Amino acid sequence: MDEYKRVRIKDLEEFVSSVFMKLGVPEEDAHITADVLIRADRRGIESHGVARLVRYVKGIKDGIMNPRPNIKTVKETPVSLVVDGDAGLGQVVGYKTMKRCIEKAKENSICMATIRNSNHYGIAAYYSLMALEEGLIGISITNSAPLVVPTFGKDAVLGTNPISVAVPGGKEGAYVLDMATSTVPRGKLEVYNRKGKKIPLVWATDEKGNPTDDPSLVLQNLLERRGGGLLPLGGAEEETGGHKGYGLSLLVDIFSGVLSGGSTALDVYGKKGQPPDVCHFFACIDPEIFVTREELERGMDHLFSTLRNSTKREGYDRIYIHGEKEFEKERENTEEVWLYHKVYDNIKEIGKELGVEAKF
Amino acid sequence: MDEYKRVRIKDLEEFVSSVFMKLGVPEEDAHITADVLIRADRRGIESHGVARLVRYVKGIKDGIMNPRPNIKTVKETPVSLVVDGDAGLGQVVGYKTMKRCIEKAKENSICMATIRNSNHYGIAAYYSLMALEEGLIGISITNSAPLVVPTFGKDAVLGTNPISVAVPGGKEGAYVLDMATSTVPRGKLEVYNRKGKKIPLVWATDEKGNPTDDPSLVLQNLLERRGGGLLPLGGAEEETGGHKGYGLSLLVDIFSGVLSGGSTALDVYGKKGQPPDVCHFFACIDPEIFVTREELERGMDHLFSTLRNSTKREGYDRIYIHGEKEFEKERENTEEVWLYHKVYDNIKEIGKELGVEAKF
Repeated sequence: MDEYKRVRIKDLEEFVSSVFMKLGVPEEDAHITADVLIRADRRGIESHGVARLVRYVKGIKDGIMNPRPNIKTVKETPVSLVVDGDAGLGQVVGYKTMKRCIEKAKENSICMATIRNSNHYGIAAYYSLMALEEGLIGISITNSAPLVVPTFGKDAVLGTNPISVAVPGGKEGAYVLDMATSTVPRGKLEVYNRKGKKIPLVWATDEKGNPTDDPSLVLQNLLERRGGGLLPLGGAEEETGGHKGYGLSLLVDIFSGVLSGGSTALDVYGKKGQPPDVCHFFACIDPEIFVTREELERGMDHLFSTLRNSTKREGYDRIYIHGEKEFEKERENTEEVWLYHKVYDNIKEIGKELGVEAKF
Repeated sequence: MDEYKRVRIKDLEEFVSSVFMKLGVPEEDAHITADVLIRADRRGIESHGVARLVRYVKGIKDGIMNPRPNIKTVKETPVSLVVDGDAGLGQVVGYKTMKRCIEKAKENSICMATIRNSNHYGIAAYYSLMALEEGLIGISITNSAPLVVPTFGKDAVLGTNPISVAVPGGKEGAYVLDMATSTVPRGKLEVYNRKGKKIPLVWATDEKGNPTDDPSLVLQNLLERRGGGLLPLGGAEEETGGHKGYGLSLLVDIFSGVLSGGSTALDVYGKKGQPPDVCHFFACIDPEIFVTREELERGMDHLFSTLRNSTKREGYDRIYIHGEKEFEKERENTEEVWLYHKVYDNIKEIGKELGVEAKF
């Protein structure tokens, strides 16, 4: 683990939130944003952790992320909210909206929220987990930058549009799905590219829209908008179910972008140098409108133990429930997290430029 | 089209509903069931059409499907229903519950329903379309017989657990997703097997849990419960996203089986000779709690035309929106449907045995 450094969460949190405060983000909002980023590192999702600090710092400096947004509720019913994020940090807009969504679900059993004019909000599961921690079922989805090619298409039109759903469980643990609707995110191609490895043919297409095993070609084409891009879950062909992954990606764009009155597809990052219009959708459901807490726990435990105790595939010794790996990581990382040495150096450099000292 | 016969829908409907009535199904319920089956044929989903009549006839005769169920609401709030289907035909239980779910959503903006003790309910989209036809967003999911292997597992534990979501659109049409969460349904393996074709490696596994291209082996293993089965969308490996399809299948089982207080996984068809405990989940959402009807139509139209007008992959000339192919079929089949000659013969034979004459 020479390439990774162990850092105290307390110090990291203080550092990251100070960076945001230096950029004009109010104290509470800075802490929210830091927590969303660090939680990704705690859960082992490096790609969405403090490694992305640079992106948000740049976003604020470039004026496309608003450090002091006037987040407005533009429509409300007892079971719904529509929120305008005023180009704020996605984490702040997401956190505050989910907080209200939870409150309303506690009062009225169900609440759904759509959000427009937001930014990249980090890991989708952060918000579904907020609901989970209150005993509710939580749903969190978001649209994103166009990197994904629709079935039979040549160009990237849709985002990797993730879906997270969290359902409280019993002693066998909760269910926390958190998946991009593409087969893999772009970061995965970057990893294979660095290692000089070929990619599976269900990951991406070349500039003609045909599956390719060359990650460098795909990344270059995406950069230059020459065509091709990531494939939806299931790959390029209907025979392998690619139209299903495409359908899920489209579903996310409809619920996030259309139902918030915001942007979809190419328009999410449509205007160069202007704030993007990232849109989210949240839902909170009180499971006790269906079953008692005891029935819920019993049902979840029974289902999960059936799966875990089921015979394993040759060469494998464990069947996982979604979220399980991340909860294990989180338990390993309660006081400290691992940071990749380049990330470690990079965020300290950011601090230096802004005059924020790191205690690590 | 020699292998297919064209049959008048009016005659087919009269015939199928008469078959159900002969078996003791009340007139209204017989018409509901006939309509669900025939709508699948109209939409070009032969596998779920009147070809399955035999299955329901056998189910009623064997006493595992109740022709006169006492469908009970066991729990209710302004935004939710929990229903016990009393082992009734899934179509009847599904239709009547979705009807009430729609009414409640019209009153209270959102309604969710979970249903236990039901049977196979036909195409999932039938019920999401009911909501769509009332201007609502409709969701319909169901658990099913264990045919699908979880990631790293050897045995089939989960169902093909389909998800249907329908969202009203404008002049570019609605969005109607209707997908099994496995890469393909079992019927697809049967087709390849009949043609002596190999199957793609993301469809199914052998008795050791390894991907196989031999459909006959998989079908035989499933029949004898020797291990292996269908693969979740994404295939057997995490590298190709198989854990995501597995996660969606699990999601369906949780929402249908756990949240209804019914059965999941192996228990859905757990007791031989006893009624299964198939469970469904429905949701209806009034989109106008988020956006005006005009904004909804504009947003959907813009998104769909962006996709349709996007550059096509080499060798392809069309990008589809989900549901589009089925709506086209339905428009071709307003008065008559195509029946495969074996299905045509088979259902007439069923009629003969029960003394129901076919006018085709």
